[in-house]
Amino acid sequence: MLKVPDHQVAGHQGGHGQPGPLIDDSGRFYKPLQDDDRGAIEAAFYTSFSSNTRVPDHIRRFFPVFHGTQLLDASDGSSQRPHLVLEDVVSGRSHPSVMDVKIGSRTWYPEASEDYIQRCFEKDRKSSSLRLGFRISGLQLYGSEESGLWKPERKLVHNLSTDEVRVVLKKFVSSNSPTDPNLNPDCSLASSVYGGSSGILAQLLELKSWFEDQTIYHLNSCSVLMVYGKKKVLKGGSSDAEVKLIDFAHVTEGNGIIDHNFLGGLCSLIKFISEILTSPDECTTKVYLQNSDNKNEEILASSNECTTKVCL
Amino acid sequence: MLKVPDHQVAGHQGGHGQPGPLIDDSGRFYKPLQDDDRGAIEAAFYTSFSSNTRVPDHIRRFFPVFHGTQLLDASDGSSQRPHLVLEDVVSGRSHPSVMDVKIGSRTWYPEASEDYIQRCFEKDRKSSSLRLGFRISGLQLYGSEESGLWKPERKLVHNLSTDEVRVVLKKFVSSNSPTDPNLNPDCSLASSVYGGSSGILAQLLELKSWFEDQTIYHLNSCSVLMVYGKKKVLKGGSSDAEVKLIDFAHVTEGNGIIDHNFLGGLCSLIKFISEILTSPDECTTKVYLQNSDNKNEEILASSNECTTKVCL
Repeated sequence: MLKVPDHQVAGHQGGHGQPGPLIDDSGRFYKPLQDDDRGAIEAAFYTSFSSNTRVPDHIRRFFPVFHGTQLLDASDGSSQRPHLVLEDVVSGRSHPSVMDVKIGSRTWYPEASEDYIQRCFEKDRKSSSLRLGFRISGLQLYGSEESGLWKPERKLVHNLSTDEVRVVLKKFVSSNSPTDPNLNPDCSLASSVYGGSSGILAQLLELKSWFEDQTIYHLNSCSVLMVYGKKKVLKGGSSDAEVKLIDFAHVTEGNGIIDHNFLGGLCSLIKFISEILTSPDECTTKVYLQNSDNKNEEILASSNECTTKVCL
Repeated sequence: MLKVPDHQVAGHQGGHGQPGPLIDDSGRFYKPLQDDDRGAIEAAFYTSFSSNTRVPDHIRRFFPVFHGTQLLDASDGSSQRPHLVLEDVVSGRSHPSVMDVKIGSRTWYPEASEDYIQRCFEKDRKSSSLRLGFRISGLQLYGSEESGLWKPERKLVHNLSTDEVRVVLKKFVSSNSPTDPNLNPDCSLASSVYGGSSGILAQLLELKSWFEDQTIYHLNSCSVLMVYGKKKVLKGGSSDAEVKLIDFAHVTEGNGIIDHNFLGGLCSLIKFISEILTSPDECTTKVYLQNSDNKNEEILASSNECTTKVCL
């Protein structure tokens, strides 16, 4: 039985005349192939990557397992269409917290159409991509039994300031309520989720080493997905935090050159996460996120005064 | 006695109504302050950097020593104007080979004017900057007693292909003639100039570690200068190869974010140089550089057939 996943935080969702992804009970994720080049490019990437002997084994685990393509009824009932059959990287976790971070200060690439380049160029400048080398594309945070999941609207997370990004990365590993305006993120889960020999930071550093060397693929506009089962960690269990790379609709050949755009952005994300681990109590400034019409205000961070100055 | 340096390979040279830099016999380099913001920004950077206690001592050696500013007669005799007084990083070497590599796939930055952004954007796309994360801005190679210095025209080096960049980086550490079309660069000096515990690669890796961490400065449009006294190395002497960062007219504040644009480009340059050290005999394809009018052909590389395939 296929169903629409409730844990998707970014990417093409169903609705608005577009079929979206599906999942089953056995841990598979079915992603409809996009009609234009993007579908073909993503399928070609998964096919190439699966059989590429130059990819080291310890790097494969950062990519969803690929089970080929399959004709399926689209999620919107429109017609049969080919789907990528992938590992569902979120399944099997109780109350998962998920964050999708699009890597790279530039989401376009020389081979793209002029129109696409211009659209990406503007989006990169308006979002945090150009400044930080990455942007948060979507997230869901598990709060508590009472508050359940917190999943801010996409348009709220797309244009975060540097301070807001820092706060969201702290909220991701905090046990207190992500939506209470009187609480600073406590970062109490940082050491078990971001830290440790198998935590998210260690995984990102392993990926970084590979990107310093690999010249096979340029992962334009690709995301790092960070996911962990929060309920288990809250109860004192060990963390199952995982990093996965997703979204390969704009991959190009490396042609003997490293993906310096991805690598630079990845190093920037690593720096942000390292700082949370070494100085979780650093200044959290008052951060509000507003919709562009200024009416629908959503509070992303609490308003405690900054007491420790960030020493750069 | 001040004189015009003969070893400048890139940057603003004298002539065309512009004053250029001067040097003296005591190893100082006098750079006229540019009239617009650029002069003020570069002077402010040197002043800030010189007194910044957050810059580790082992990193300072990668920057020219700054001796303040001084009013001097301009090199074109036009008028007195302020000059930055800097360490002449090329002086004291016999027959120096010099290469200026502008780092970053993007030479513009969000704070720049729209006009500047557009001009840089086009130049980055046309040159190797966007593809490789860096571009060779200028070079001079010492050939031999007979051939003397080889200093290709700037417009020839600005728009190199990936293969051509690889060849130029090989020529930089080769003992055979850089201009003879029948010779492949032999890379015979690679291990002493690029390699070793104090060679250029080791120095670039030390800089890389700092850029993974430092969030003080964004070195937009800055160059890595690589220099060594070729005659000494040819005679079997130890290498005096040095890496220096130069050109700070577009530095901006880091504001707590690493310079991911510089870091990505630096990692790409490191990868190219590492490959020359590990596989100096890899395929050298026929590479000619042509002026845009196709008349004035200059041969940058020899035409031996490729015998070993590059295994990526």
